[in-house]
Amino acid sequence: MLYFTLNYYFYKMANKQALLQTHQQIKPYIHQTAILSSTLLNEMAEAELFFKCENFQRMGAFKMRGAINAIINLTEAQKQRGVVTHSSGNFAQAVSLSARSVGIKAYIVMPKNAPLVKQQAVQSYGGAITLCEPTLQARELTAQDIVQKTGATFLHPSNDMDVIMGNATATMELLEEHPKLEIVVAPVGGGGLIAGTALAAHFFGNNCTTIGGEPANVDDAYRSLQSGTIETNETANTIADGLKTNLGDINFPIIQQHVKAIITVSEEEIKQAMRLIWERLKIICEPSCAVPFAALLKEKASFKNKQLGIIITGGNVDLGNLPF
Amino acid sequence: MLYFTLNYYFYKMANKQALLQTHQQIKPYIHQTAILSSTLLNEMAEAELFFKCENFQRMGAFKMRGAINAIINLTEAQKQRGVVTHSSGNFAQAVSLSARSVGIKAYIVMPKNAPLVKQQAVQSYGGAITLCEPTLQARELTAQDIVQKTGATFLHPSNDMDVIMGNATATMELLEEHPKLEIVVAPVGGGGLIAGTALAAHFFGNNCTTIGGEPANVDDAYRSLQSGTIETNETANTIADGLKTNLGDINFPIIQQHVKAIITVSEEEIKQAMRLIWERLKIICEPSCAVPFAALLKEKASFKNKQLGIIITGGNVDLGNLPF
Repeated sequence: MLYFTLNYYFYKMANKQALLQTHQQIKPYIHQTAILSSTLLNEMAEAELFFKCENFQRMGAFKMRGAINAIINLTEAQKQRGVVTHSSGNFAQAVSLSARSVGIKAYIVMPKNAPLVKQQAVQSYGGAITLCEPTLQARELTAQDIVQKTGATFLHPSNDMDVIMGNATATMELLEEHPKLEIVVAPVGGGGLIAGTALAAHFFGNNCTTIGGEPANVDDAYRSLQSGTIETNETANTIADGLKTNLGDINFPIIQQHVKAIITVSEEEIKQAMRLIWERLKIICEPSCAVPFAALLKEKASFKNKQLGIIITGGNVDLGNLPF
Repeated sequence: MLYFTLNYYFYKMANKQALLQTHQQIKPYIHQTAILSSTLLNEMAEAELFFKCENFQRMGAFKMRGAINAIINLTEAQKQRGVVTHSSGNFAQAVSLSARSVGIKAYIVMPKNAPLVKQQAVQSYGGAITLCEPTLQARELTAQDIVQKTGATFLHPSNDMDVIMGNATATMELLEEHPKLEIVVAPVGGGGLIAGTALAAHFFGNNCTTIGGEPANVDDAYRSLQSGTIETNETANTIADGLKTNLGDINFPIIQQHVKAIITVSEEEIKQAMRLIWERLKIICEPSCAVPFAALLKEKASFKNKQLGIIITGGNVDLGNLPF
């Protein structure tokens, strides 16, 4: 299985040339996001930090990169039948906006208790919403049903090589501007971002290693790296609501091969890091984005005087419901 | 008086060459801040908007530009005796950090009821704080006292040609990246930013006009432009706490000559514009920064399909005390 998957991802062209081509092909649809620094945060971390601000990405998150790449790579026949995904978060918006950008249909399955503001965001990007019961099973069945009825292609938010390669382009841009980065840190949720980050660091970095940050309350990826199999979480009680999902069979082998370590952090550490980013970088980011910075502060002795890149994954927060 | 002042400011070298020289000399001490855009905000305004993000400036506000320029232009003898200002806001931090950057002493007079967080910010930048009674008279007397005792040079936050020319560099950078801007909009408080903005638009724009935004509750500048003399406010009840001050005799003639109009906005319009900037641009900005965007939305028929620059002046907000 592992052997097959490794072969699969090399076969599916995750090499330098293919990643460059991916970047070229998605460039018209994405923003080259700003990279910010703060003297005070550098002093606090005793390192030189470069924050790649994907909260400034179209629709407000890095998910745009993977979604548009997956959609561009569909055949013309597939495009005509549209795409479907189930998500209550950023991937739903990314698929909706990506589909609209290339003129195809997006069917979005959302749990009926999804916040109205998220439903409105999907609608504003042209996604056609189907509401379902708020269980994973209902979501999957409803999506399957749409696939059968419409012939639309199902897009997975993280366990998809095109999504992973699209995600990789954030770190490619970071390394293009800061080629001397020694470490890149990204949050670990479903594994699609950290896998893409690791591929970019591997192929475009100059001995640049990849570190993951994960909430201790949903430390499935941390445990997966230790056990060598994909672990799951019994509960998912974390403020970092983008990081509750598990790894998949396509991204896990990449993570095993290219991610040096995963650092887990407490809820309190996440909240403090989030507040520091808001106050010092003057940007709005989701709690999930604060996890890598929290991880870095927790283990700062290991990173002393190093140049680090940090992926700020998204900025879609409810301003009426902040943790501070 | 007017004739003298106009002569004064031309004599004090507010021309293209002098502004370029100003920019060159302050560049090592400031960030060239990012310029952000949002498709959704463009659609809402029916115009093309470019937000110059001085909230990303060192110490979190455009005030750094004017403060460092004023300090650089001191004589060596003046530098040795240090600088003094009275402020409870961004200018205190800007003077402190600028003074430290060139290795001179900064005396900061603050009202004793100034929030502890602001006092700490000044201290963290190396400013020596003297607390006084919370009245303008006490602040001025205390500052005067320090001038007499130490020989330090008093720096005014807005009615100072070096400060105005330093402030102008934000718009110079904006026009360098977007030379086709037809209009630049900035908030009007003490007049130092809008005067600098207007000079930059005049000397570096391609028929680029300057518009001011002002809270209706402190519309002294709006009334000053109408009456031809510097007006004051009876009360200063606005969420845009950076805009409560009055124009001065150095910046007013520049504003009269180069600012096309001042648009006033309600408190509710300011809050709504601030929330839009936070939610859509994903940046943290002060209420004062939202005033130009609010002004633009209010009069959007006048700006339809135009390219506009908007100065986001600062990002030092108390996250524990937000208006939404």
